Amino acid sequence: MAGLLFVVSGPSAAGKGTVCKRVLAETDLELSVSATTRKPRPGEVHGREYYFMTEEEFVRTIEENGFVEHVHNFGCRYGTLVRDVEEKLSQGKDLILEIDVQGGYLVREKFPDCILIFLIPPTLTELEHRIRGRGTEDEASIRDRLLTAEREVECLKDYDYLVINDQLDAAVEDMKSVIRAEQCRVTKNKYDSTVQFFKESR
Amino acid sequence: MAGLLFVVSGPSAAGKGTVCKRVLAETDLELSVSATTRKPRPGEVHGREYYFMTEEEFVRTIEENGFVEHVHNFGCRYGTLVRDVEEKLSQGKDLILEIDVQGGYLVREKFPDCILIFLIPPTLTELEHRIRGRGTEDEASIRDRLLTAEREVECLKDYDYLVINDQLDAAVEDMKSVIRAEQCRVTKNKYDSTVQFFKESR
Repeated sequence: MAGLLFVVSGPSAAGKGTVCKRVLAETDLELSVSATTRKPRPGEVHGREYYFMTEEEFVRTIEENGFVEHVHNFGCRYGTLVRDVEEKLSQGKDLILEIDVQGGYLVREKFPDCILIFLIPPTLTELEHRIRGRGTEDEASIRDRLLTAEREVECLKDYDYLVINDQLDAAVEDMKSVIRAEQCRVTKNKYDSTVQFFKESR
Repeated sequence: MAGLLFVVSGPSAAGKGTVCKRVLAETDLELSVSATTRKPRPGEVHGREYYFMTEEEFVRTIEENGFVEHVHNFGCRYGTLVRDVEEKLSQGKDLILEIDVQGGYLVREKFPDCILIFLIPPTLTELEHRIRGRGTEDEASIRDRLLTAEREVECLKDYDYLVINDQLDAAVEDMKSVIRAEQCRVTKNKYDSTVQFFKESR
């Protein structure tokens, strides 16, 4: 049976990275392996940490519509390969994609059966508190992030599940519950195989 | 916000009672209180253990379409009151109904937003094993139950979730995950209240 694709989105500083890391450690889900134009670091293996690409390969892949989404960060490109996701799903692996809010829509376009999870801190005030706590941004940039978050939270309406990241443990439990519940969901395939297995035993 | 209604169905001897009892003990969900024509036992309180009814009241309630479903057992009648379910849901309580397979359809007719969970043992052979293990039934009755189960498992296609009761702990975890996930599901109401709360904090 094909694997499930979980997409975790939300405003920056919502805690996507922290929550996903815990979920990956406590379940048998996998992350999709991204492509990047940055040079491999010692120990990094092509196809394990990243698919390493030249600038030309990356641009060609964009032109061929080969990315679910891609971004430019600190002079390097990063992207989620449609082919990598498709391959893993067809092997029956359940995957997590951690992605920004706009990215969620792009994933659903390419993978209509994906499950969209929206992660937010309980309030804008708390989000502001977390961004200021990092101490890495000036006033203009903080204001900008908060305005973006205020706009982004309205995208929640197109998502399947909401996880409020107030207490980390509870958010991780919520996310793991969504995953386990979706693994129990009745689909045409699951119906067929269950009924067959159930009856054939006699 | 209105509560959620979870319906747990499955062939007899699937373990519905055992699983639901554990789930009720480990979550804050409630059971709907049934109506019955049997006499109260010492300590039983009207509206807590049961709504105690006379035969006439019960029959009138049937005629008024006041039951989600009702059965006749050992000379007494038992039924789930539409009004009890409606009241608790409107108070925001999440409820579990444990019901036979045909009953599931009746609940969905009256409560279209209910969440239908199908519970089965892994195989017919295992179901047979469990029924024989009870040692309470003759061959004809065992054959009858197995034929019914074989037919009932096909109703799975109209259910939302499948929980296979192989190991009890795993089945309880599955059920609790379905409940917690559905509590995270994005609905119109949840969207409105979340966005409002998120923004108003500043």
